[in-house]
Amino acid sequence: MSGSRTPESALDVGGDSFTSSREEDAADGIQHSHRMLSFSDALLSIIATVMILPVTHTEISPEQPFDKGVQKLLATRIAVYLMTFLIVTVAWAAHTRLFQVVAKIDDTLALLNLACMMTITFLPFTFSLMVTFPEVPLGIFLFCVCVITIGAVQIEHCAHRALYRQHILGIILRGPALCFAAAGFSLFFYPASYLLMAMVIFLPYFSKAASWCRGRLVGPPELPAPSVEFFTFDLHEPLSKERVEAFSDGVYAIVATLLILDICEDNVPDAKDVREKFQGSLVAALSVYGPHFLAYFGSFATVGLLWFAHHSLFLHIRKATQSMGLLNTLSLAFVGGLPLAYQQTSAFAQQPRDELESVRVSCAIIFFASIFQFAIWTTALLHERETLQPSARFGGREHAFMFAKLALYPCASLLAFASTCFLSRFSTAIFHLMQIAVPFAFLLLRLLVRLALAVLRALRGLRLPEPGGEDDSRAPLLPAAC
Amino acid sequence: MSGSRTPESALDVGGDSFTSSREEDAADGIQHSHRMLSFSDALLSIIATVMILPVTHTEISPEQPFDKGVQKLLATRIAVYLMTFLIVTVAWAAHTRLFQVVAKIDDTLALLNLACMMTITFLPFTFSLMVTFPEVPLGIFLFCVCVITIGAVQIEHCAHRALYRQHILGIILRGPALCFAAAGFSLFFYPASYLLMAMVIFLPYFSKAASWCRGRLVGPPELPAPSVEFFTFDLHEPLSKERVEAFSDGVYAIVATLLILDICEDNVPDAKDVREKFQGSLVAALSVYGPHFLAYFGSFATVGLLWFAHHSLFLHIRKATQSMGLLNTLSLAFVGGLPLAYQQTSAFAQQPRDELESVRVSCAIIFFASIFQFAIWTTALLHERETLQPSARFGGREHAFMFAKLALYPCASLLAFASTCFLSRFSTAIFHLMQIAVPFAFLLLRLLVRLALAVLRALRGLRLPEPGGEDDSRAPLLPAAC
Repeated sequence: MSGSRTPESALDVGGDSFTSSREEDAADGIQHSHRMLSFSDALLSIIATVMILPVTHTEISPEQPFDKGVQKLLATRIAVYLMTFLIVTVAWAAHTRLFQVVAKIDDTLALLNLACMMTITFLPFTFSLMVTFPEVPLGIFLFCVCVITIGAVQIEHCAHRALYRQHILGIILRGPALCFAAAGFSLFFYPASYLLMAMVIFLPYFSKAASWCRGRLVGPPELPAPSVEFFTFDLHEPLSKERVEAFSDGVYAIVATLLILDICEDNVPDAKDVREKFQGSLVAALSVYGPHFLAYFGSFATVGLLWFAHHSLFLHIRKATQSMGLLNTLSLAFVGGLPLAYQQTSAFAQQPRDELESVRVSCAIIFFASIFQFAIWTTALLHERETLQPSARFGGREHAFMFAKLALYPCASLLAFASTCFLSRFSTAIFHLMQIAVPFAFLLLRLLVRLALAVLRALRGLRLPEPGGEDDSRAPLLPAAC
Repeated sequence: MSGSRTPESALDVGGDSFTSSREEDAADGIQHSHRMLSFSDALLSIIATVMILPVTHTEISPEQPFDKGVQKLLATRIAVYLMTFLIVTVAWAAHTRLFQVVAKIDDTLALLNLACMMTITFLPFTFSLMVTFPEVPLGIFLFCVCVITIGAVQIEHCAHRALYRQHILGIILRGPALCFAAAGFSLFFYPASYLLMAMVIFLPYFSKAASWCRGRLVGPPELPAPSVEFFTFDLHEPLSKERVEAFSDGVYAIVATLLILDICEDNVPDAKDVREKFQGSLVAALSVYGPHFLAYFGSFATVGLLWFAHHSLFLHIRKATQSMGLLNTLSLAFVGGLPLAYQQTSAFAQQPRDELESVRVSCAIIFFASIFQFAIWTTALLHERETLQPSARFGGREHAFMFAKLALYPCASLLAFASTCFLSRFSTAIFHLMQIAVPFAFLLLRLLVRLALAVLRALRGLRLPEPGGEDDSRAPLLPAAC
């Protein structure tokens, strides 16, 4: 190329003349990177969540007994969902870690990232194969090939940067290396492959949990450890809060909308049926599906309000630590199970005898999804100087309100679960009552908390005018919240 | 409340003491708003796109003739998809406009926004009802009730802010007002309702197109018109570029991943079949589904690369005008149709006789999706001072490369379409060749363009050393791009 032209020349398409527009390029790089990461987050959250659909589509006809066969099928599909969710979260965490050191993304990297995403979308299929044919090694072999491909693509990403390369490479290569061994084993002794695969999936979780426990028992490591692998992998704040939010938003959004798809496909009555069975009355035909619509709105409201609590929570969080990330993943895994709760409750009309179990399963799913959110907050409070905004700390302006907001769903679902034990005949009514009452409680929550605190303050003001009172202010919140 | 305490007191939960932390609250407000908007964008893009699934799930058995009945069913479902897509985009645009004037979002607004989203998710169902029972007014009545509810919720949003209230109210109320009339008509003369409904959907598009044409014919309006409604509605840059990107990302992400769902649900062979038909060989059983996997990867690659082109395009765009937004919507509507193309091409194995039509439909969908992207760029070039980054303008460093990138898919799909006309026997092979060749072309594009330009420059350098040459540089790009 003749390098004698001015950089503004129309013909100078090459990227090697950055004299005039360095700031602009820097700005480009950030936006570039930001949008590609959001797109990846959206893709990954959809893939993580979408495998709940085969679970909800499991058809159990009313006359069929809920026997071993059906139970096994359901358990199989739930296992596929959970495994997919976990492996995709591991892949997402590796992706996050990788892109924390990638500063500027060029076209080649963007295309490689797409290839990586394509391979990840194929993981659920390999799980389905594995679960359907546990004794045939093809499934695990395909899975390993996928993980190795993902690893190879990510190394390709990484090879562009010199900084931290060795350390990041070590982390990224661990999964593919284990899978390479697993692929080898799958050819002659497949149980070992499953063991290795389980290690790929659960190792990051175990190491996170172990480091958290160690931190609790021994105390946080004061000086940064000399190993840089430790630095990038086990550091207390390695997760980008924005990406945690983006991934969570994706999961909530897809879960909230998965349901309308079923409604649109299954609950539009057939024109012939309406003419013959309902004498042409569409309203009568639709009223058959009444419980479905009710369940849909209830489910959407639950997902929406859980998102709202999550959103309020992360508004007060400054940094997301590893353990908070782990709790968030667990919470999201249960949120992904909410369509199952929907399907359970919408089947009431057909199967009244399973009503009690359905309501209990739904309550349990909601309880676990919300209690893990609560646990995120509790964990954040343990290191409140680093992790929380000042207003949400002990004694902060928003502390009591935040507590009430996060405690609302665990309390409500626990209450509903407990009352189904005593009043098992009214379990459906109790569940629907909960679904209707909780949104109103959220609307009035600020008022209620403020009222309770004002009453308390007035009572205390009568006794003695003390200025502090930070510790006492927490105890009386529970009655206001539940 | 006793207002005599310090603002830092634990008991002061109320929001009326902002003395110490105004900046922090401002930062909170922005983040709050940003995350809620991304979540809304994700929800809206999923709802807009998800109705393609009933189209792709239309089962046409191999022995059934592709007769009037099937054609009508398909046309019906495609109409539902397109109507849903358009109305959701209208709702999204109204949402964008509304939140451009909402500065800080409190909890009540967030909950109202969730209610608004819930109503919007119900719109596809009303469309399905309308299309299945066109002569029963219930569908249109429900639709109108939904739109009125959305309008009411949005007014509630708006009522919190004084600034621009009147003007925004006027815009937001137009849809619900039309729908109120339509709901009235639906009770005694339903065809008028459909007319009014069509106005609700298409009015924004017509007004955009009309204003664009007026701008082309008469010239852009020099002074901002005195009416503020004009200001907020017809202004040349009223769309937030970030939200256009977020909405587009959502559509691309959901389209790319919708396909794996079908793969996971339908293409895992049955254990009994494998034992009986394939003598226990899983590989043999899977090879039956070979075309499905090929089509899946082809489709993912197409969606991914279209996203890549869109992403590169918006990287060079500074502001998104109304007309660019309209073109983007049209492009996305065709992108949403890509799963249909997948389903068409994956059905090859079963229906070889419809092969030619399938390939042509796929090429047409890809062509329209990409040509509208190209049109966005052309429109942006018309006002390049306002809309484009300097490097992408005529004569900019990236201009030629951008041109080639956006022209690649239209050229390739047109070429494939044309060659199926001449070589109809090899249509499948041609289509698959295109799907494989285009990703490589993207990878090598920068090299190819640079090579072509270098050759050109060398040739011209031999003749005479002229410094400018901005106009000539565009013509010889076409051979490099196609």
